[in-house]
Amino acid sequence: MTSPLKIAFIGLGQMGGGIAANLIRAGFDVTLYNRTREKLKPLLEIGGKAADSVAEACKGADILVTMLADDAAQEAVTLGPDGAAAHLPKGALHICHSTISAATARRLAEAHEMAAQAYLSAPVFGRPEAAAAAKLFILTGGKPEHAERAKPLFDKIGQRVFPMGDKPESANIAKLGGNMLIATVIESLGEVLALAGKAGIDRAAYLEMLTSTLFSAPIYKTYGALIVEEKYEPAGFAAPLGLKDIRLALAAAEELRVPLPIGSLLRDRFLTLLAQQGAEDLDWSAVARLAARDAGLN
Amino acid sequence: MTSPLKIAFIGLGQMGGGIAANLIRAGFDVTLYNRTREKLKPLLEIGGKAADSVAEACKGADILVTMLADDAAQEAVTLGPDGAAAHLPKGALHICHSTISAATARRLAEAHEMAAQAYLSAPVFGRPEAAAAAKLFILTGGKPEHAERAKPLFDKIGQRVFPMGDKPESANIAKLGGNMLIATVIESLGEVLALAGKAGIDRAAYLEMLTSTLFSAPIYKTYGALIVEEKYEPAGFAAPLGLKDIRLALAAAEELRVPLPIGSLLRDRFLTLLAQQGAEDLDWSAVARLAARDAGLN
Amino acid sequence: MTSPLKIAFIGLGQMGGGIAANLIRAGFDVTLYNRTREKLKPLLEIGGKAADSVAEACKGADILVTMLADDAAQEAVTLGPDGAAAHLPKGALHICHSTISAATARRLAEAHEMAAQAYLSAPVFGRPEAAAAAKLFILTGGKPEHAERAKPLFDKIGQRVFPMGDKPESANIAKLGGNMLIATVIESLGEVLALAGKAGIDRAAYLEMLTSTLFSAPIYKTYGALIVEEKYEPAGFAAPLGLKDIRLALAAAEELRVPLPIGSLLRDRFLTLLAQQGAEDLDWSAVARLAARDAGLN
Amino acid sequence: MTSPLKIAFIGLGQMGGGIAANLIRAGFDVTLYNRTREKLKPLLEIGGKAADSVAEACKGADILVTMLADDAAQEAVTLGPDGAAAHLPKGALHICHSTISAATARRLAEAHEMAAQAYLSAPVFGRPEAAAAAKLFILTGGKPEHAERAKPLFDKIGQRVFPMGDKPESANIAKLGGNMLIATVIESLGEVLALAGKAGIDRAAYLEMLTSTLFSAPIYKTYGALIVEEKYEPAGFAAPLGLKDIRLALAAAEELRVPLPIGSLLRDRFLTLLAQQGAEDLDWSAVARLAARDAGLN
Repeated sequence: MTSPLKIAFIGLGQMGGGIAANLIRAGFDVTLYNRTREKLKPLLEIGGKAADSVAEACKGADILVTMLADDAAQEAVTLGPDGAAAHLPKGALHICHSTISAATARRLAEAHEMAAQAYLSAPVFGRPEAAAAAKLFILTGGKPEHAERAKPLFDKIGQRVFPMGDKPESANIAKLGGNMLIATVIESLGEVLALAGKAGIDRAAYLEMLTSTLFSAPIYKTYGALIVEEKYEPAGFAAPLGLKDIRLALAAAEELRVPLPIGSLLRDRFLTLLAQQGAEDLDWSAVARLAARDAGLN
Repeated sequence: MTSPLKIAFIGLGQMGGGIAANLIRAGFDVTLYNRTREKLKPLLEIGGKAADSVAEACKGADILVTMLADDAAQEAVTLGPDGAAAHLPKGALHICHSTISAATARRLAEAHEMAAQAYLSAPVFGRPEAAAAAKLFILTGGKPEHAERAKPLFDKIGQRVFPMGDKPESANIAKLGGNMLIATVIESLGEVLALAGKAGIDRAAYLEMLTSTLFSAPIYKTYGALIVEEKYEPAGFAAPLGLKDIRLALAAAEELRVPLPIGSLLRDRFLTLLAQQGAEDLDWSAVARLAARDAGLN
Repeated sequence: MTSPLKIAFIGLGQMGGGIAANLIRAGFDVTLYNRTREKLKPLLEIGGKAADSVAEACKGADILVTMLADDAAQEAVTLGPDGAAAHLPKGALHICHSTISAATARRLAEAHEMAAQAYLSAPVFGRPEAAAAAKLFILTGGKPEHAERAKPLFDKIGQRVFPMGDKPESANIAKLGGNMLIATVIESLGEVLALAGKAGIDRAAYLEMLTSTLFSAPIYKTYGALIVEEKYEPAGFAAPLGLKDIRLALAAAEELRVPLPIGSLLRDRFLTLLAQQGAEDLDWSAVARLAARDAGLN
Repeated sequence: MTSPLKIAFIGLGQMGGGIAANLIRAGFDVTLYNRTREKLKPLLEIGGKAADSVAEACKGADILVTMLADDAAQEAVTLGPDGAAAHLPKGALHICHSTISAATARRLAEAHEMAAQAYLSAPVFGRPEAAAAAKLFILTGGKPEHAERAKPLFDKIGQRVFPMGDKPESANIAKLGGNMLIATVIESLGEVLALAGKAGIDRAAYLEMLTSTLFSAPIYKTYGALIVEEKYEPAGFAAPLGLKDIRLALAAAEELRVPLPIGSLLRDRFLTLLAQQGAEDLDWSAVARLAARDAGLN
């Protein structure tokens, strides 16, 4: 009988907490670290172990899993003398679920390679409820053998894995492109609902028509309802994160010399939104408010 | 026993032909007129009657159904001394399936009102196959009693009716907004697929990921496949019609003072496409080619 | 001794009034018509004659000069049984100073040609003061012999004539393009001044730097000052006229299949401005206010 | 009799070379460093001294002047153990002429402050000929006393100094905004000249009209001529530098939450241009080529 895989898990926000819980319940030996210690509590109760530092969590781990808010947090946890690359054993694998830039993914991969470790970009689609229900969609970027090694974990947290390419950043670029598509749905719904509203069409009936015919994807229903009800709080995904993801998509595209006109338009919308007082806490779908405002609707 | 409703049907292209066939098969007394006479043949074989002019078709009709290519054709058929309004009986109802401008819809409604007739805007969503299969989605703009009167016909040609408002143009604006959303899907897929392609991600795998996760609506699958395969001929919906619909959406919005930034961007894309030699015959999804070209991909 | 040229002059707003005064003072035999009769008074005092209708003004005229607000007014004066083309003598020349669409210019030229008359598009650059001071810049579109015939008048009202081509609409398109360039100056100054303002740079000092170095054209000084002082009333050129000209530029470009991305952006800005209450009376430079507002500056 | 100010000068490209020559001729004691040594030769002949490293150049200097290509070069020269801040004497002043980002300017100022030195952002407007002729326009960002200290140098190299604010980055933001305005002139001229060309208007005559009337600033003449003649080589200011400056303007604006829609459009244009083979060596005015191409003109 083999002992379970030893996993270090760093980043226990809404998404990370759900993923970690599923790994613990699946029987893995999970050591947890989070900057804010209180987030650990429910996970310790179901069998997780606590570490006081990144270094302590990484010591002796077979696999490191991270789910952090942005590039800066991810770099702080991974690089430098106190970072994961310096403390994971040789041969360990880092599975990175964070939505980070292509450039940072490349930098992480290089740092782990220099430390004789492996790196796999593995951003996910799914909201906190999907993470809790082990229903995430997982995109992978990296060598197939690393993705293979991650499979036992992925089986316990997601519903399907999509390999995007051998380069780590392929998964990050794929994820950022997907988020740009979601933001496009929000903006375009915002525009046509402003038009409908000013034309005297009942906006809820219009949305019902759209989502009953050509636009049946849940994303149209979910965001369409938020826009029709102007329900932008509490944020499921906060506006500053939306700006961040559009910025990262544009940065990856700029590096590859790919113009993204809709991406540019979205960036201007998020900046406009976030230039207004109090917008930091709104859901990113609040950009749809600007189309209504520019039409003189409020 | 009452005699069947007497219907005049004008405009027998791919869409109109399918609709007319379903009405004939349902037992209505249908008199047909089309500028190009040969289109009538299959319909005469199943029981339709031929008319040699708009006037002749309209004579004695209870209901006029039209499905024409653009505002100019629709106005030519409806207005003036040879038009339908001058030849339909008092009390007749005109059901207009054409995708026309808000301004023209209003003008048609006024002309019929002056002739003591009724008008209902009834643009549809659905491709020729849906028309043939009586699976259209029908949007209505006009008084509820007119929509009620049209119900026996709608039951035979569509799968669902969506009332958009009492003003005739509400249905036209709703339809144009819907088409703008489709064009937005095309453009945004074009952009992210250009990014994916230049990042070395397999575009078909990327599309499969998108449509298996968040973007499950058939519209993403259909247009995504055309873009990945660069299969822009033969046209399901030709690029000049795409430009026309975006222009009409922008015109309706301008009248109401509603800016549509994505609409403006789409208009520029269609103009760019149609400024190139030979683009007239391409499917409107060929605008996605421009994102690839601008990224240096071909 | 030859008798002076007999001129019919229609349209006596701020611009037309100044032009007509210069023609009267130069000794031409000028008969005036304006919808609002009171505008004629100062011109009658210096020797102009009054007419009670377009037809009366045009009767026996060698040359018709028009300066009207938009396409609709220009068409009403020129076409139809009461219009100028029906009442001018054969061989007469129509000099049209109005800023109208390419399509309307073409239509006017055709109407005059069918009446064996001549037509010259002659839009101008210059504000009312320039019209009063006979300092207008005149663009001409039409046959060189028609421009030659107009020369004695142009000598008395403008400082220079620029032939733009043999097609009447060339001058209109040239004028509309010029107005789009002015609006671009306004919008771009609005954006950089919003940036400067939010960066804590004194906006007046910044403008002074720009106009003392690379942007010395008066247009940057004039509009820059309006923007820095937020002095958008009274309107020198009202916002709805700005929207009209951008719309006409885009329409001419669409007919020729020329995308104008900056034109599209300007159109959205003017729509946004005019969707706000009370904006009808603002100067068109008030679009610069939107850049400041979107940056959270007011 | 006081000895002349001791100046270290780093960065001897086309611009830096001209500035340095003027300082040497004015009698300052100038020690020069450039990564590519051969650029020093003509300056040594007129009295400049050579240094083999940044450190050697900075040793004992009263004032350091830098003119480098981008943020990376400027940081490499200033920061770190081999950088200027580590080797300049306490109390020395760094005058930075490079067009760099607001963020980098701030970082340089901090580094010098920690080393008890002073920093002044001093980007310039002017082409190499203006640098050689001591006709530069100099924008300053920083404390007035530092600008005062720089005055003896500025007197010898420029025609006027414009203080933009006490924060170092004010001058950089002002410069980047100015460059965005120039790029706007290029893009808008490209669009209207494409329209004119497709309308059959002679483009040179059209440009002559524009620059003789409202757009008399040299910038319209210079860039207009390049566009009409399609003369994009050799580059006066290369397209990649144009992209860089627009990117930096957008980055400064994003930090301050200022949307710049024209800036976004320009960024997409530069990316489109640079995605094409061989575009690296074109003048930045070649973005105007895209408006013509999109109109189907070539």
